Amino acid sequence: MLNQLDHTFQALADPTRRAIIERLARGPASVSDLARPLAMSLPAVLQHLAVLESSRLVVTEKIGRVRTCRIEPAALSLAQGWINARRAEWEERLDRLETYLTTAGDRHEP
Amino acid sequence: MLNQLDHTFQALADPTRRAIIERLARGPASVSDLARPLAMSLPAVLQHLAVLESSRLVVTEKIGRVRTCRIEPAALSLAQGWINARRAEWEERLDRLETYLTTAGDRHEP
Repeated sequence: MLNQLDHTFQALADPTRRAIIERLARGPASVSDLARPLAMSLPAVLQHLAVLESSRLVVTEKIGRVRTCRIEPAALSLAQGWINARRAEWEERLDRLETYLTTAGDRHEP
Repeated sequence: MLNQLDHTFQALADPTRRAIIERLARGPASVSDLARPLAMSLPAVLQHLAVLESSRLVVTEKIGRVRTCRIEPAALSLAQGWINARRAEWEERLDRLETYLTTAGDRHEP
């Protein structure tokens, strides 16, 4: 069973989907606004949007004839939290190692 | 062509590979240390390690008969940087919107 982090990282593993997120981080956009700078057909763009929606990174809402897309920040926060926690643990370990090596050095001084 | 971020996010989109990174964030480990808590065969673990190595999240080094694995922080930093930048843009936009709505409110006060 895929969990939320699986979905999020899978969705982010594609340059077109990251380009869409980069655009939406600057504000909501219609599907045609999103498609304009992308060198692909509208159905291809819609397919990428469907992946972003099913991974809950993006929410789309149809008002009249225009489908507007916006970032849903919760999924991005979860991924950010996971990476930040690993970095923090890794750096904490380096600090502990440095402290250990410093005090070990002190102990062995003549 | 897959780029570094594609590889990194793809590698992180799997719970076993994230479990390996979680373990290695606390310090280097041998392949058998990594395999012990995982409910899968050694070849399956090695396959996940190969993905982590080819995405440059993990480096392995064979010393004598023991293969030791450790985190290579650069790829994780790149992914962290990408997500943090999107969050920052998104929050900056919300701040601008709030400022705009506040000053627009001031302008329309009687």
